[in-house]
Amino acid sequence: MPTTALSLSRDEFELLEKLLWMDGPSRHELAARTGHSKSKIASLVAHLLDDGWLEEGESQESSGGRRPTSLHLSHQLGFIVGIDLGATSVDVVLCDVNLTVLGTRTAATSVSLGPGPVLAQIGGLLDDLLTCHGVPPEGVFGLGMGVPGPVEFRTGLLINPPLMPRWEGFNLREHFAALFEAPLAVDNDVNLMALGELHHVRQRGLGTDLENFLVVKLGTGIGCGIIARGDVFRGADGAAGDIGHICVDPDGPRCYCGNPGCLEALAGAPHIAREAAQAVESGASPILADLARQHGELGTREVAQAARLGDPVANHIVQTAGSRVGQVLAGLVNFFNPSQILLGGGVAHMGPLMLASVRQSVYARSLPLSTRKLRIDYTHLQDASGRRGAAVLALRHALTVQAGLRGEA
Amino acid sequence: MPTTALSLSRDEFELLEKLLWMDGPSRHELAARTGHSKSKIASLVAHLLDDGWLEEGESQESSGGRRPTSLHLSHQLGFIVGIDLGATSVDVVLCDVNLTVLGTRTAATSVSLGPGPVLAQIGGLLDDLLTCHGVPPEGVFGLGMGVPGPVEFRTGLLINPPLMPRWEGFNLREHFAALFEAPLAVDNDVNLMALGELHHVRQRGLGTDLENFLVVKLGTGIGCGIIARGDVFRGADGAAGDIGHICVDPDGPRCYCGNPGCLEALAGAPHIAREAAQAVESGASPILADLARQHGELGTREVAQAARLGDPVANHIVQTAGSRVGQVLAGLVNFFNPSQILLGGGVAHMGPLMLASVRQSVYARSLPLSTRKLRIDYTHLQDASGRRGAAVLALRHALTVQAGLRGEA
Repeated sequence: MPTTALSLSRDEFELLEKLLWMDGPSRHELAARTGHSKSKIASLVAHLLDDGWLEEGESQESSGGRRPTSLHLSHQLGFIVGIDLGATSVDVVLCDVNLTVLGTRTAATSVSLGPGPVLAQIGGLLDDLLTCHGVPPEGVFGLGMGVPGPVEFRTGLLINPPLMPRWEGFNLREHFAALFEAPLAVDNDVNLMALGELHHVRQRGLGTDLENFLVVKLGTGIGCGIIARGDVFRGADGAAGDIGHICVDPDGPRCYCGNPGCLEALAGAPHIAREAAQAVESGASPILADLARQHGELGTREVAQAARLGDPVANHIVQTAGSRVGQVLAGLVNFFNPSQILLGGGVAHMGPLMLASVRQSVYARSLPLSTRKLRIDYTHLQDASGRRGAAVLALRHALTVQAGLRGEA
Repeated sequence: MPTTALSLSRDEFELLEKLLWMDGPSRHELAARTGHSKSKIASLVAHLLDDGWLEEGESQESSGGRRPTSLHLSHQLGFIVGIDLGATSVDVVLCDVNLTVLGTRTAATSVSLGPGPVLAQIGGLLDDLLTCHGVPPEGVFGLGMGVPGPVEFRTGLLINPPLMPRWEGFNLREHFAALFEAPLAVDNDVNLMALGELHHVRQRGLGTDLENFLVVKLGTGIGCGIIARGDVFRGADGAAGDIGHICVDPDGPRCYCGNPGCLEALAGAPHIAREAAQAVESGASPILADLARQHGELGTREVAQAARLGDPVANHIVQTAGSRVGQVLAGLVNFFNPSQILLGGGVAHMGPLMLASVRQSVYARSLPLSTRKLRIDYTHLQDASGRRGAAVLALRHALTVQAGLRGEA
């Protein structure tokens, strides 16, 4: 953290908030993005350079003369840690303050074990990562963490997380406060995938019409991250996007949540594994039986492989799951009118038939005005969306907290 | 319009934008709401008073001394016209610039007749209203209009409106530009109901947690207005909230949109009328048969009356429709996590059983975190939400257009 004046005026803070979505902008680009005049930007930037919040990149010669100097957050501020906890795996990423990735660690885990063992495991990964890059705990500027359950965003508490019953009411902020001076921000894992995708899209300048979109994670659980008017939408209590328990078949099997025919119960990874097991038991799919013997297990990976080998049973399983997902998304397209739906998670990557089934089901059921520009595709960042989002959340939260907004004169 | 300097700085414009949601605030209240210092507010207000944008209310003596002066938009600016066009009726309202209602006109209509006859009818109502209050066309500061179909908000064009096929691509702005100097803004009728409810809630100071809610209109069509983070959410193409064509029964009857089992086809007013007609034909409901004879027609009004008289068939019709609505809303509660769902429109007011069925169906199917604070009720403004919303839209749009934002120095 800079040792000089920490507090920021509202204009300075807003400038940093804009800059973190850009890729080393010039003063001119910042003026265009913020709506401030060039002279005002020059004066704001001068203060932020003096106070150690910003630093200038090297200006390079180009054919048209000297390129304007790029502006970046100052490395003095420290490092950013992102933690992406899924139901069965955890990713930890260390970035510099401009979100360039320095290193990642990934491990299999099981959130159902509860906070004790899982946080010990995360602590080990973090220690290793920080030590490896020579970063002491006090060198961390901010931490962000995604968890596979509903989070009350203001408090950071997990509320009735169906996949994480042992975490109910657990205070992650307090846990990390004992380890780091820097603040921790917690959000739902799918919200962070959406935030990560938004950051990617904006930093690359991929399109200004990408301010309203959905990111859908298809895995053990099914959830949806919502970008509305250019920011994560969390709803009244932070529970928005919990689409896994929308009913797709009132006569369907009972979900662990207690209700019948939830999307998650009919398209989540455990359901796909059960369908595969039934196909093996009934002798309907010799290919799946072979793969189960070879791999010693039978899950989405085996079903995907069988589908690629042309097994009709596996293809039917994939198609049915995709169609169920599309059935729910069709309704959400009518309601939310997103410009894009981006799919991520293990189930989404079971093969082209999954994406095709989702698309078919959505286009068949949504209204023309909502679908004429709609694009349904995989996430841009593949499996890195969640950790990018955790890092963006960490940076935004740390700027807010550590800046300590200065009252206007 | 003020004859002095028209253009506004960004800060001045933002202050007016805040003020229009408040009920004659003091300078102190404006400072609290905008985050500006008292001295900055004093200087902004002084300019806006000088330039004819604001005027001061009379300061009154109170027990604690002189009450602070209230601030209002200047009556010099002119009058506001709101038009709320539904499928079968139209409301026109004339307000002063602070949205106090001066008069309204209501008439039955049929949007299916197309723009010619319907706009002639609206023109007649408007003429009458303006003449009655001595307002010449050039005295109008802004016009806002709601229509029962999807609108591309930027252009104001109707896109594939299912209830209004003859209006496809019709340019309402051009039509009104020939009649008024003031600009017209057009939006979907349900978006304007939501905007009207938001204005009511804010102006009355009814709660700061009311920034994410839904307004559902149940009538000939079924639609949803979305307030996300304190403003109307329109989606990527202005089509958000079109929930009438979400599928509630894949084996259900075909909707006029072409798909089977749409919510509108199973809970809209025409469906309820058809169910009632069948009950009369089959002899299942002598009460409905009596009412049909007495009134010479058989629609939602008769079904509502029969339900109040304890007719089990009518009650079943109401209950089934409410349950279908609740089925869709349960999914939207999981996705959007609203703090409130407010119901309006003729079908919503068919009696307490309708509200009860919607509630029961939502609470049975939504997740605990999403429903622990959720309130489901009628709209606060009853049938005035739409015209209030049209007036709010008119005022916001007129401020934006007529102010002509001044570039910063």
